[in-house]
Amino acid sequence: MEKITKRINRVALVGVGMIGGSFIWSLKRAGMVNHVIGVDTNFEELETATELDIIDSKSTLSGLHDIDLLVLATPVGAMPSVFSVLKDKAFMKTALITDVGSTKQSVIAAAQQGLGFLPANFVPSHPIAGREHIGIQHAEEMMFYGHRAILTPHQQSSQEAIAQVKSLWQACGAIVDMMSAEQHDKILAATSHLPHILAYTLMESLTTTEYEEPIFDYAAGGFKSFTRTASSNPIMWRDICLNNKRDILYWLDHYQKTLSELRELIAEERGDAITDIFQRSKIERDSHLVNHSDT
Amino acid sequence: MEKITKRINRVALVGVGMIGGSFIWSLKRAGMVNHVIGVDTNFEELETATELDIIDSKSTLSGLHDIDLLVLATPVGAMPSVFSVLKDKAFMKTALITDVGSTKQSVIAAAQQGLGFLPANFVPSHPIAGREHIGIQHAEEMMFYGHRAILTPHQQSSQEAIAQVKSLWQACGAIVDMMSAEQHDKILAATSHLPHILAYTLMESLTTTEYEEPIFDYAAGGFKSFTRTASSNPIMWRDICLNNKRDILYWLDHYQKTLSELRELIAEERGDAITDIFQRSKIERDSHLVNHSDT
Repeated sequence: MEKITKRINRVALVGVGMIGGSFIWSLKRAGMVNHVIGVDTNFEELETATELDIIDSKSTLSGLHDIDLLVLATPVGAMPSVFSVLKDKAFMKTALITDVGSTKQSVIAAAQQGLGFLPANFVPSHPIAGREHIGIQHAEEMMFYGHRAILTPHQQSSQEAIAQVKSLWQACGAIVDMMSAEQHDKILAATSHLPHILAYTLMESLTTTEYEEPIFDYAAGGFKSFTRTASSNPIMWRDICLNNKRDILYWLDHYQKTLSELRELIAEERGDAITDIFQRSKIERDSHLVNHSDT
Repeated sequence: MEKITKRINRVALVGVGMIGGSFIWSLKRAGMVNHVIGVDTNFEELETATELDIIDSKSTLSGLHDIDLLVLATPVGAMPSVFSVLKDKAFMKTALITDVGSTKQSVIAAAQQGLGFLPANFVPSHPIAGREHIGIQHAEEMMFYGHRAILTPHQQSSQEAIAQVKSLWQACGAIVDMMSAEQHDKILAATSHLPHILAYTLMESLTTTEYEEPIFDYAAGGFKSFTRTASSNPIMWRDICLNNKRDILYWLDHYQKTLSELRELIAEERGDAITDIFQRSKIERDSHLVNHSDT
C-alpha cells in the first residue's frame, strides 16, 4: 500500500490548537479520518474543539490506546515529555505518526530520547502556514490549501509511511516538499524564526524606551504588517528559540552584522551605498514575493 | 477666512507619484481644486497622471506661475533644490503651500535655506498612509480615508494657513493631528523609518549569505508581511535615512541593544525571560493594533 486508500479509524490529536485543529478539520473534510480523540492540558480548547466537531472525544495522553494515526501538535518544547509518556504504548509501533512542529531536528531527537527508538512509521512534518493567533477557535478548514508542507523523514522512516503522510497533506491541499531536518531548520530559521524574533524585538524595543509619546497612535500599515508576527503565541515561539538555537543564532548574527553595516552607512550619510542595499532588497522581494498573497 | 470655502484655481503638484497623486485625486473628488499642473522629471509619470485625470497640464518647476496651492511631493532629498528653484517666484508669498514628506524638520530647513525665509502660508504635512509601491499608477482616490495626517506648522505658519491645509486633508477623509516637526520625526522614526530599515536589512541579510538553498521558496505569511515594506521606493527611503538620521540612529541603537539582549537570552536558553519578552510584545501589539486593519 503506497497511499492511504481507506478511512483512518482512530486518530489522536495531541495538542488541540490552531494548526493541529486545522489539519484534522481538513482531513475530516477530505473524508480521510473517522474518530478523532483530542488530548490537551487546556480544557477550554477541548470544549471548543468538540463544539467545532474537530474532535469526537477526549482523553489524557496516558489514556490513549488503539490509535491508527497520531498527530503531535503541541509547542515543540512539550515533545520530549509527550514521547516519554507514549513510550510503552503498543500503537507507537503500528500507528502512522506525524507532527506539525516548527523545528524538526529537535522533534526527532525528542522521539529518539523519549521512545528509545525512531519508529519507521514516524514522518515529521511542518506546514508553512499559520496565523498570528492562538487557539483552536482560529482553526481553518482551508489553512494549508496552496501552502507548502515540508516532510523531514528521519533515517528509519519507511517509504510507505512517507507516502501516507504525504497523502494526508495533499488531502489538505498542501504542496508537499521533502528535505532533511537539518535543511528545514536552517531555512525556517531564516524565513520564519528570524522575522518573528525581529518583530517581537521591535515591539519590546519601542515599549522599553524613556520616550513617552503615544508612538503607536502613529503606526501605519508598514508597522502593522511588520509586527504582525509579534502577536503570535509566546510559548510556541520560546520553544522554537530554544529548540533551533544554533540556526537562529547563525542568522541572527548575520542580521546584526548587516544592520550594523547599514547603521554606519546612515551615520556616514553614504547615500549611494544605502540606495544600493534598498534597491537590491526591493528587487529580491519583488521577484520572490510580490506575486504571492500578503496574508 | 478660516477654512477653504471656494475651489482653489491653480494647483501645482511637484513630484507626481503615488502619494501626491492620491492627494490631488482626493481633492478633485471633493471638488476642492480646479486646474492641476504636474511637475516631474519622469515624463512617463506625467503621461500616466494625465491619463488618470490627476493632472490637467504639465510644466517645468521654473516655468510655474500664478499658483494658488503648491503641493510638494518629491522624495525629501529633492526639497532643497526645489525650494531654491522656487525662491524668486511671486506665488511663494501668496500661495498656500504644503508638502507630504516623511521627514519634517528637514523640509522646514530646506525651505528656510532655499527661500531665505519661511512663508507664513507654508504648513508642512505628512499623511500616515501609503503602499509599498512606486509611481502614480498606484495612486488611490481613498488612500487617506480614515488615516491620520500630521501637520507640523513651523513658528511662522499662520493660523489661517493651518486651518486651510487642515481642511484639505479633512476633505481627503484624513484625521488631522498637529505636532512639532521634532516630535513628528522622533515618532515616525520609531513607527515607520525603523521598521522599513529592518525589513530592508532582512532581505539584504538573507541574500548575502553563503547559504545557497532556495530560502524564499519557504517564506510564509509572516515573512511576507514582515518584508512588505522592503518593496518600497529605495530613493524615497534613502532620503528619509539621510534626512532623519539623528532620530533613526537613536531608535536603531536602542533596537540593536534590545536584539543583543534577546540574542543572549536565546544563547543562554533562558526560557522564562524569553517568554516574558514575547508575552509583553504580544500584549502591546494586540492592545494597540489588533483592532486595526493589517493593510
